Amino acid sequence: MSAYAELERRFRRLALLDEAAAVLAWDKAAMMPAGGAAARAEQLAELEVVRHQAATDPALADLLDAAEADEAALDGWRAANLAEMRRRWRHANAVDAGLVVAFSRATSRCEMRWRTARVENDFAGLAPDLARVVDVVREIAAAKADAFGCGPYDALLDQFEPGARSARIDALFADLGAFLPDVLDRALAAQAAAPEPLPLDGPFAEADQRALGERLMAALGFDFDHGRLDVSHHPFTGGVPEDVRLTTRYERDDFTKALMAVLHETGHALYEMGLPREWRRRPVGEARGMVLHEGQSLLIEMQVCRGSEFLTFAAPLIAEAFGREGPAWSADNLLRHYRRVAPGPIRVDADEVTYPAHVILRYRLEKAMIAGDLAVADLPAAWNEGMRDLLGLAPPDDRDGCLQDIHWPDGAFGYFPTYTLGALAAAQLYAAARAADADIVPAVMRGDFAPLVGWLRANVHALGSRHTTDEVLVRATGRPLDAAAFKRHLEARYLA
Amino acid sequence: MSAYAELERRFRRLALLDEAAAVLAWDKAAMMPAGGAAARAEQLAELEVVRHQAATDPALADLLDAAEADEAALDGWRAANLAEMRRRWRHANAVDAGLVVAFSRATSRCEMRWRTARVENDFAGLAPDLARVVDVVREIAAAKADAFGCGPYDALLDQFEPGARSARIDALFADLGAFLPDVLDRALAAQAAAPEPLPLDGPFAEADQRALGERLMAALGFDFDHGRLDVSHHPFTGGVPEDVRLTTRYERDDFTKALMAVLHETGHALYEMGLPREWRRRPVGEARGMVLHEGQSLLIEMQVCRGSEFLTFAAPLIAEAFGREGPAWSADNLLRHYRRVAPGPIRVDADEVTYPAHVILRYRLEKAMIAGDLAVADLPAAWNEGMRDLLGLAPPDDRDGCLQDIHWPDGAFGYFPTYTLGALAAAQLYAAARAADADIVPAVMRGDFAPLVGWLRANVHALGSRHTTDEVLVRATGRPLDAAAFKRHLEARYLA
Repeated sequence: MSAYAELERRFRRLALLDEAAAVLAWDKAAMMPAGGAAARAEQLAELEVVRHQAATDPALADLLDAAEADEAALDGWRAANLAEMRRRWRHANAVDAGLVVAFSRATSRCEMRWRTARVENDFAGLAPDLARVVDVVREIAAAKADAFGCGPYDALLDQFEPGARSARIDALFADLGAFLPDVLDRALAAQAAAPEPLPLDGPFAEADQRALGERLMAALGFDFDHGRLDVSHHPFTGGVPEDVRLTTRYERDDFTKALMAVLHETGHALYEMGLPREWRRRPVGEARGMVLHEGQSLLIEMQVCRGSEFLTFAAPLIAEAFGREGPAWSADNLLRHYRRVAPGPIRVDADEVTYPAHVILRYRLEKAMIAGDLAVADLPAAWNEGMRDLLGLAPPDDRDGCLQDIHWPDGAFGYFPTYTLGALAAAQLYAAARAADADIVPAVMRGDFAPLVGWLRANVHALGSRHTTDEVLVRATGRPLDAAAFKRHLEARYLA
Repeated sequence: MSAYAELERRFRRLALLDEAAAVLAWDKAAMMPAGGAAARAEQLAELEVVRHQAATDPALADLLDAAEADEAALDGWRAANLAEMRRRWRHANAVDAGLVVAFSRATSRCEMRWRTARVENDFAGLAPDLARVVDVVREIAAAKADAFGCGPYDALLDQFEPGARSARIDALFADLGAFLPDVLDRALAAQAAAPEPLPLDGPFAEADQRALGERLMAALGFDFDHGRLDVSHHPFTGGVPEDVRLTTRYERDDFTKALMAVLHETGHALYEMGLPREWRRRPVGEARGMVLHEGQSLLIEMQVCRGSEFLTFAAPLIAEAFGREGPAWSADNLLRHYRRVAPGPIRVDADEVTYPAHVILRYRLEKAMIAGDLAVADLPAAWNEGMRDLLGLAPPDDRDGCLQDIHWPDGAFGYFPTYTLGALAAAQLYAAARAADADIVPAVMRGDFAPLVGWLRANVHALGSRHTTDEVLVRATGRPLDAAAFKRHLEARYLA
């Protein structure tokens, strides 16, 4: 067997262990009773140890060297697969088993603590566990920085978005940061001058909300023979490409959030479902990174489903699902609800004009924590100051301030920026899609998403990790990631 | 680290891999969309390969030898744990990795085929896949027979019920086979002379059936912080002791089967929930075998819940759950339904008088298939002939004949006899429990199951695999497994 073939065999095992862990993680969030948590943590930790052992088997170094020496024998997909295997090997081998276990323990413990600390608005109770997580993540970041020859925070970014560097994000976020306050002021003024949306009175039975979500998921191309929709505290997309598990959460008196969350997750699901089957269980066959992943979900949710064409199609289905009628259930009124701009303290409730400010705040703070310039104890004050600076508001308490997100307790430093980079990618890709195929928008209005999803499949999904994110964007849109399309989108939608 | 301690560490990994596989298997039956089957089969197969590699690591042989040489240093629990580790090592090391993969592939494929073949009454469509499973199982049986120094079929029995031997089962089943036809005739005659039960008219909403099941599960001691009730095609108990997953299936026009299935599975669940926590993730801490497991479920379902005391407690709750009233909903009438004797072709619908005949048939046929005396192609004819012989009836078709069970497609040869051995154990244990504590029966009538479950916990559950099945029975009932208590039970219930 060639070194390359043996590498494929070994990475197939890693992929299958990841798949098993993904199903266990979905179950933990969507099905598991609370009393199963400790046992599940042990199961996931053991899978991680087994995975780490396989990913750091000393034989891999020689196999990678041998395959790279013979790289000329590989076609483009295989060469990209080999490069991706090397990148993953670097990540896995930069940290020793003790640090992997320390990360798993610290984050499991901190995440569990966070669940009560958030409810009880108890930052002091979380702080020691969070400080431990930050310490471990800083150790990991330092080790990976050595391995990749980059800065510690950049090494964390690379875990979620390969090749991402904070210097470029600084520039993109500076550009956005300079642009957004003025747009926000003008959007709020335009909104104040327009009629208030008519109320959408509840209650909305969960079963009806779910049926509506499933109907629109199916319209978008979600294949229920290869996936499910369930409930969890935070909406997410889990499972595996042949069996994609979406979750949302329902509010009895407001269907609008759960519905948009379902459509958002459907964007993630379509990416997973559209990955190249012939490269399944090989690194090159997986999604490129979190920028394009979030780009897919925000393209579907923000660009398409909050657009007037989609709501023209969906409004009668929404009214029918809840047995309602009248002017509140028109596409125009739904559009007013779905385009409401309102600065607030909570990221997951934010509109698309203010969302980047939430991300920029977290990006600044996590960079400072990783650099050692911000102590966990000082986080609440820094958070509140940042919110005042960026959005001109003060969170009522830590629960709706620095305790609101699971990401840091979970150890996911370097993840937040991908939300806003994804928003930029979504705008850039949708603009290119509309330019490439004039039927995409009229088809959306008819409830036909095949032209749109076909374009996304060809230009993003089916490419897996064959190219870098910027290469994908250059091929599809003519230029690397920037903020131009996103700015035009905000102006067109909120200032017109 | 001592050899024994190192063995515990290694078997802990095996236990955790088993737990991960158990959750994936539950999900497969209760949650997974059909299109996820192929990917799930690969995930489970890979976990099995990883598990098999760990279970056949050459270092284990030396560790077992060293620990056994120093066995005098171990207390009773640890000595039993070591013996159980040796038994498992023998099972794992008897078969090579190729055979393990062949088994996993053949059974995954055959099980999926069976799902449609049964619906379509298409035995010919299943036969090639089933023949492949039989071939692989015969290879495994031959290899394990060598390792254990027993016959091939006995080696398969040992996988489910350690120490079980077909010579003893032959004798027990001959005893039962001679006893049952006469009891059946007399029970049918007594039933014909008694008034017909009043009909329990449906429909019964699934949500109401589920709520009733959960209420009675809770009364029996099932802890919903450590488990769930869901739906699958066949009721089963899965998950792990801290998170036990029960399933049932509901019929709209008949609640009685789903309810008793829930109570049956609750018996399994109580065993899992009652295993000794201090021996968790060690072989000695696991359930003893399928005879005592089925003994627990049949004790709860058949001995307790189809008894007049339980139904006296449950009748008003059942009536309330469905908003019904009147004489049909009395304990007496429910009892008549739940004691109905009616020979029929379907095992899972069989009453407890005719159930052993279904098991004896399967036992005879699977022994013959493993011995090479019965070809898969000849199974339908042999099945139908056996049904005529044992119960005097002919199945209408293969769907309700030899296609009805998942066990053989799933590769579970040597499992069927444990159902009836479990029925014998259930009768023997419940008789001993009543003799040991006179409050058990009156407490059941009050809906208080603590005395019963306390006795089971002390005499069965908390013992894990510390003793053999016969040792458990001798300690709890004064004698090894036999049919005497079961015979007395049938006479008392059906001929009184």
